[in-house]
Amino acid sequence: MGTRLSDSEQYAHLWGTPELALIFEERARLQTWLDILTALAVAQARLGIIPAEAATQIAHHARAQGLDLDFVGSETRRTSHSMLGLINGLQKVLPDEAREYVYYGATVQDITDTWFALVMRDVGAVMWRDLRTIEDTLLVMAVEHRDTLMPGRTHGQPGSPITFGFKVASWADEVRRHLQRLSEGRSRWLVGQLGGAVGTLGFFASQGVDLRAEFCLELGLADPTISWLSSRDRIAEFSAVQAMVCGTMARIGNEVYELQRPEIGELREPTTTDTVGSITMPHKRNPEGSEHLDTLARLVRAHTQVLTEGTVVGHERDGRGWKAEWVALPEACLLTGVALRLALRLLSGLVVNVETMRTNLNRYGDQLASEQILAGLTQKLGKHAAQRLMHEILAPGTRDVHGVLDALVTKGVASEKDREAWTTWEVGDAGRMVDEVVARARLARSLEPEAWT
Amino acid sequence: MGTRLSDSEQYAHLWGTPELALIFEERARLQTWLDILTALAVAQARLGIIPAEAATQIAHHARAQGLDLDFVGSETRRTSHSMLGLINGLQKVLPDEAREYVYYGATVQDITDTWFALVMRDVGAVMWRDLRTIEDTLLVMAVEHRDTLMPGRTHGQPGSPITFGFKVASWADEVRRHLQRLSEGRSRWLVGQLGGAVGTLGFFASQGVDLRAEFCLELGLADPTISWLSSRDRIAEFSAVQAMVCGTMARIGNEVYELQRPEIGELREPTTTDTVGSITMPHKRNPEGSEHLDTLARLVRAHTQVLTEGTVVGHERDGRGWKAEWVALPEACLLTGVALRLALRLLSGLVVNVETMRTNLNRYGDQLASEQILAGLTQKLGKHAAQRLMHEILAPGTRDVHGVLDALVTKGVASEKDREAWTTWEVGDAGRMVDEVVARARLARSLEPEAWT
Amino acid sequence: MGTRLSDSEQYAHLWGTPELALIFEERARLQTWLDILTALAVAQARLGIIPAEAATQIAHHARAQGLDLDFVGSETRRTSHSMLGLINGLQKVLPDEAREYVYYGATVQDITDTWFALVMRDVGAVMWRDLRTIEDTLLVMAVEHRDTLMPGRTHGQPGSPITFGFKVASWADEVRRHLQRLSEGRSRWLVGQLGGAVGTLGFFASQGVDLRAEFCLELGLADPTISWLSSRDRIAEFSAVQAMVCGTMARIGNEVYELQRPEIGELREPTTTDTVGSITMPHKRNPEGSEHLDTLARLVRAHTQVLTEGTVVGHERDGRGWKAEWVALPEACLLTGVALRLALRLLSGLVVNVETMRTNLNRYGDQLASEQILAGLTQKLGKHAAQRLMHEILAPGTRDVHGVLDALVTKGVASEKDREAWTTWEVGDAGRMVDEVVARARLARSLEPEAWT
Amino acid sequence: MGTRLSDSEQYAHLWGTPELALIFEERARLQTWLDILTALAVAQARLGIIPAEAATQIAHHARAQGLDLDFVGSETRRTSHSMLGLINGLQKVLPDEAREYVYYGATVQDITDTWFALVMRDVGAVMWRDLRTIEDTLLVMAVEHRDTLMPGRTHGQPGSPITFGFKVASWADEVRRHLQRLSEGRSRWLVGQLGGAVGTLGFFASQGVDLRAEFCLELGLADPTISWLSSRDRIAEFSAVQAMVCGTMARIGNEVYELQRPEIGELREPTTTDTVGSITMPHKRNPEGSEHLDTLARLVRAHTQVLTEGTVVGHERDGRGWKAEWVALPEACLLTGVALRLALRLLSGLVVNVETMRTNLNRYGDQLASEQILAGLTQKLGKHAAQRLMHEILAPGTRDVHGVLDALVTKGVASEKDREAWTTWEVGDAGRMVDEVVARARLARSLEPEAWT
Repeated sequence: MGTRLSDSEQYAHLWGTPELALIFEERARLQTWLDILTALAVAQARLGIIPAEAATQIAHHARAQGLDLDFVGSETRRTSHSMLGLINGLQKVLPDEAREYVYYGATVQDITDTWFALVMRDVGAVMWRDLRTIEDTLLVMAVEHRDTLMPGRTHGQPGSPITFGFKVASWADEVRRHLQRLSEGRSRWLVGQLGGAVGTLGFFASQGVDLRAEFCLELGLADPTISWLSSRDRIAEFSAVQAMVCGTMARIGNEVYELQRPEIGELREPTTTDTVGSITMPHKRNPEGSEHLDTLARLVRAHTQVLTEGTVVGHERDGRGWKAEWVALPEACLLTGVALRLALRLLSGLVVNVETMRTNLNRYGDQLASEQILAGLTQKLGKHAAQRLMHEILAPGTRDVHGVLDALVTKGVASEKDREAWTTWEVGDAGRMVDEVVARARLARSLEPEAWT
Repeated sequence: MGTRLSDSEQYAHLWGTPELALIFEERARLQTWLDILTALAVAQARLGIIPAEAATQIAHHARAQGLDLDFVGSETRRTSHSMLGLINGLQKVLPDEAREYVYYGATVQDITDTWFALVMRDVGAVMWRDLRTIEDTLLVMAVEHRDTLMPGRTHGQPGSPITFGFKVASWADEVRRHLQRLSEGRSRWLVGQLGGAVGTLGFFASQGVDLRAEFCLELGLADPTISWLSSRDRIAEFSAVQAMVCGTMARIGNEVYELQRPEIGELREPTTTDTVGSITMPHKRNPEGSEHLDTLARLVRAHTQVLTEGTVVGHERDGRGWKAEWVALPEACLLTGVALRLALRLLSGLVVNVETMRTNLNRYGDQLASEQILAGLTQKLGKHAAQRLMHEILAPGTRDVHGVLDALVTKGVASEKDREAWTTWEVGDAGRMVDEVVARARLARSLEPEAWT
Repeated sequence: MGTRLSDSEQYAHLWGTPELALIFEERARLQTWLDILTALAVAQARLGIIPAEAATQIAHHARAQGLDLDFVGSETRRTSHSMLGLINGLQKVLPDEAREYVYYGATVQDITDTWFALVMRDVGAVMWRDLRTIEDTLLVMAVEHRDTLMPGRTHGQPGSPITFGFKVASWADEVRRHLQRLSEGRSRWLVGQLGGAVGTLGFFASQGVDLRAEFCLELGLADPTISWLSSRDRIAEFSAVQAMVCGTMARIGNEVYELQRPEIGELREPTTTDTVGSITMPHKRNPEGSEHLDTLARLVRAHTQVLTEGTVVGHERDGRGWKAEWVALPEACLLTGVALRLALRLLSGLVVNVETMRTNLNRYGDQLASEQILAGLTQKLGKHAAQRLMHEILAPGTRDVHGVLDALVTKGVASEKDREAWTTWEVGDAGRMVDEVVARARLARSLEPEAWT
Repeated sequence: MGTRLSDSEQYAHLWGTPELALIFEERARLQTWLDILTALAVAQARLGIIPAEAATQIAHHARAQGLDLDFVGSETRRTSHSMLGLINGLQKVLPDEAREYVYYGATVQDITDTWFALVMRDVGAVMWRDLRTIEDTLLVMAVEHRDTLMPGRTHGQPGSPITFGFKVASWADEVRRHLQRLSEGRSRWLVGQLGGAVGTLGFFASQGVDLRAEFCLELGLADPTISWLSSRDRIAEFSAVQAMVCGTMARIGNEVYELQRPEIGELREPTTTDTVGSITMPHKRNPEGSEHLDTLARLVRAHTQVLTEGTVVGHERDGRGWKAEWVALPEACLLTGVALRLALRLLSGLVVNVETMRTNLNRYGDQLASEQILAGLTQKLGKHAAQRLMHEILAPGTRDVHGVLDALVTKGVASEKDREAWTTWEVGDAGRMVDEVVARARLARSLEPEAWT
């Protein structure tokens, strides 16, 4: 039984997904490592570096479920070597004639970095799929609410009207850029590692680069130009994208959190009758999913910071940043994965209170039309003069007494006709922007693959 | 089987200690939570808030090993409530007459924050003990090597001599300040939480503060002046001390890492014959323990950052930072704990190559005596004139040809007698500083308790 | 004209205070550095290390306003040495007989670290003073609003009532802990540095430690046990306190930001008639001061992170973290300083809308009394049964139709008398907690000095 | 005179470049802001929104050198509005008939975000140019030292040989990826902002999007699909690239720092006879430039963290993250700029001690050939058996006595012929990898523009 709450029976669902568990759970991870060892043996057999039979045996016996994990662990501790426990454990299940040919000329980092590439491939594929589903949800929502009026808010204060579709389109636009980033970064991230002791593949004399090409091919990864044992920008960049993705999810979460305040009441995250918001305050409906998106983003940012620091590496291998990656990259992946699932659930069931949005617009008389009134008055007085006059009228103390237009009419600078013309809840080109976001996204979607890999 | 490498069979020993596992492992954690619930019931019974019999039953049945963890987990997920799974699980094992009296008027955070206080108590005690043992080791080493000459190094370049004891004393001095910090922060950290729904203890009408006092007393924690549900500086401060402690351990680790370079060869971390530094390069003796101290410090810093961000809290409870604490505080504790054990092992077996230190001093002729030569020359020429002359003599290109003193003698500004007088490897007051550090530390140790709690 | 917006004519007021400018402005800083050089010379003269007359001349001529800053700058660049520009500049204004005795045996870090100690002293004093004034303001406010009812809020949702005084007391309690931290850390921070080349004071043979004592005495700083050239926890700790202080200010700022939403309307930050919230939306009253507290906290946290990373130092001096401190510590100080002034201004003029607070409590019928109703119902049904019943009644869909008590009365589990008894806006022991916070703070204040230094 | 050491006469050269000062210095920045206001007026005139004559007058008079900065500052403080000081200052120099048409319908963020886009364009161009020059320098160096043997080092310990060209090619490979990132991110970053009050361009009714297109065209920026007032991933991503770029520079810097240790002596950063490494230790040649690259990377990482946090934005504008960007983005740009110039200087004059590299290879007898010996022995014994045997031979205690091959010969597992064949300093495919890196980079360079914009 583990020590991390993130893996506990009680709370694991908050810090990972079943799908990602299939990547990161211990035996799954070990199986991937064994697959990498197999790919290495197969490639080596193909180039005549090891006997073909040895590769066949390795391929056959390298099964995580057959490993004695206790032995693997105790050998790891005894030798203080990260991989020797696994190798010794594997050798125990290999026939004699294959034993010498496993992990042949490789170094720990060849296995773990190649695993990282596979992790980035698999987690990237999950991110791609979930971001696209989220985008689709957002596009539908943006279209549906293209003209749903609500107050815009700046600095936490209601202002000129927007439409809910406009808000959603801004999220979608951000998600699209993340998809672009995933698309562009792919060729930098899905790259195998085979460097050997110091990156030169010295063990293999002049066969190293050819072997690496075979090895990468076998795993469906790209072949790097040069070993990247101490070149860690790939990892840092992938995680930076995750931090940004989680930032977007947290932005959405916080928006729901705020607009779900009953004093505002414009949005509400989905709930079930089983959900208990608070035991002590039975009336509570807490936006806990929304909150959690912010929580996840904080943690992912912290891990990204570690991975960015990890680009400053010494010499041909540096355990300091590298071992930090072992913890930080999987963690960032698990948390990003759960953020995306959570966001999707949140958005799919999002309750949009169209009536309340409208009510909130009208709640402050004509105040939220102040920009439109300013625009109208500008035609008569000039912009800055209009602004100064309105500032005066709306000065603290006086502002709550009259409506803006009442005051303007009283002052003789606005007519009764203006009153009507200036309070039509002008949303400018919000609709055109929504249309543009949707059109561009739909086009991009039609041109790109559904699956990342 | 978990998804976190930090809890894997293979690598758990790098990311936690068995001792800390006894605090953080799931059933251990749940038992502490149940103990807190028991303390609450006992305190409530004492004040007549619940029947004494109910408290007795709760105390009797609240055993983690009896819990159906699957049920706890599935109820947690079903209700989306962090504590209801546990409560429902507990109620199943309680007799009918006690069921209604468990978790009576409390809120989730009362349990988890009080747990945090207990965690800070227990982990603080481990830190206190290990830091004191480390200090003791350092003091012995400082005394032993009070006069062991070696090159000082600034900007990575050897310079005036120091003693190894002086270097060690600087570590000890830093450790002493951490002990002070633990000592001073204690009263802020070991504080129970009982706030109820919004911190006012409204459920208990006018009995709240009295109940809280009993509850804290029962757990051996201090009673807070006011609920701290949204006042998280305690957590942030505790973790900031951990980040600094790990910073010191990483400083020591990096020093060993650098001085273990065979080109320098002054220190070497302990190893065993079983230890395999590198499979592909069998001659390697890697400072992996030293490196790992740096790795741990990076990760702890990142979690401290999250916890510091967590002080910016909304209203009377804010799930965003709070849930991040759930992951970050235990993680920082586990990593700090392993850093201390690792540092202790490293220091206890540290190989100090006294001869090599001496050899390295002499390796550059009289160059490393340049400060002493400058001091001597200053008496004749004035300090800045002396510095300029030596700068000239030692200019790139010319510097490697002659020894400094040869050049000075040639120039007629130094005599042969000076040569001897100025190259005595002057270490100034290094010895007095060592003595002072040791004396102060010994005094402080004699006046303070061995155990933190 | 500088490149940093933080020093611009336009915006400098957002990123520093005039008072702190007197510490950090270039000539002020240089004067402090010259004062340190003077203190060194005076101490050296006292011990007979340099002629008394030289010290007198240095004390007389070491004036920043007399320095040729262009020359200082160009010499700094020419020599690539951080201090030689200043020394050469100073020597130009010194009489011949004193020139050789300035910066006698010192190293750059002796000057800049001692300056850091003075900075921590002076900025610490500002923090102490401002935090105490803030505390005083908060205590007065807590007493005034001890019984001012308002909704408590958790997860952004209104819940059981609190009092505004209770909220304010929680801020005050946190501020008090910061004052403790400043009090306790002082002896670790206000410590001079005189280490020379590698920390041993080798230049001064056996007079080093005595000289350091005189030097520190002259500056009113404590004498360190041992040189701390590569022991940077002092700096990290001071900044960690700043990050926590700014966290508290940001917590207050965000609270005002949220409660100033017109939909809530319970608080409003002070404004003047000149203040223009928005040019395009003249009705806006933005909580820009409140927001800025959060902005400042973000930046200070980032600098604290740099300073914490700076504790991992190589050998006897390490330019990598040290030079980062040069930028990060002053920046953290300037930003913390402006945060405190801003918070003080915000709190001093804070508009508390007592009526709105009350209105908001009643706004959701009897819902915000749900905890009190639960407490009442618990007496009849048992707590968890009561909770389940209320959960059922308040299930989504049904919850808006009836009041909670209507439903309970209908169900026959509550009487009409209960209705009245259970909706008295019970705030538990909020008042007692406020009293306790105020009493403890007042006592602490009466026992501590008004000035930190 | 400013308060930031980064702008001081003494040290500004460490924290910025003259070239970047032309972007960020106050009047330069204000001129760019005025240029943006001019572009807005021109675009508005073109669409008939304001009189053509007004635009002409604005274009003519909007000169930073004509502004009364004192007035701008005091108006900014008086109104607490970020832009009104500048507007009022500008109106003072405009003819009457143009005054009303300046800043027409815009919001502060339209100006500052568009400025950010221009900053990213101009700083991006500097980065592009400097990274390409650095790459070119590295490619030349990689070719020159394609076969220059030196010890590879892992975990700080010398191991199998590499070539210096191989090390350099790894840097070049990383730089190439940064160039890719700059290339790909460009279209996301160089995007104007015109959103007005809440992003909908409501002030301009149905002309908003057309106006924005004109405005962006006028400035040479791309037109965004939708306003990005609260969509800040662009900024975060740009800065993340900067953090990675600085990570690479710091990696190079730290490599030089370590290899410049005289105990190693393989590299040395360029110096001049004027450079004073240390006043107190005249023999010192400190790698201060190399160190500074690490310093800069730390600070940039911290600012990137702030900017990543800044993606979590509330509503349609949120001053909290936004104002932090005001400080963090320019700071990251200035520091990245100086890092690149410094790295270029460092690399251009880098002293490569080819002889010492070779000497260091031979310094440990045949130990650094252990991988090659292992490879040879593997042919006889099998790989893991060979590894175990060598591990035994090289066990602590015994390892220093004999050479590896002596022991193998003695044991009868190696012949005298093997001795020669196995110590040829095998570098595997290092050369092929260098060739590949160079070829790919040269091809990419030939296909891409020299200037980014």
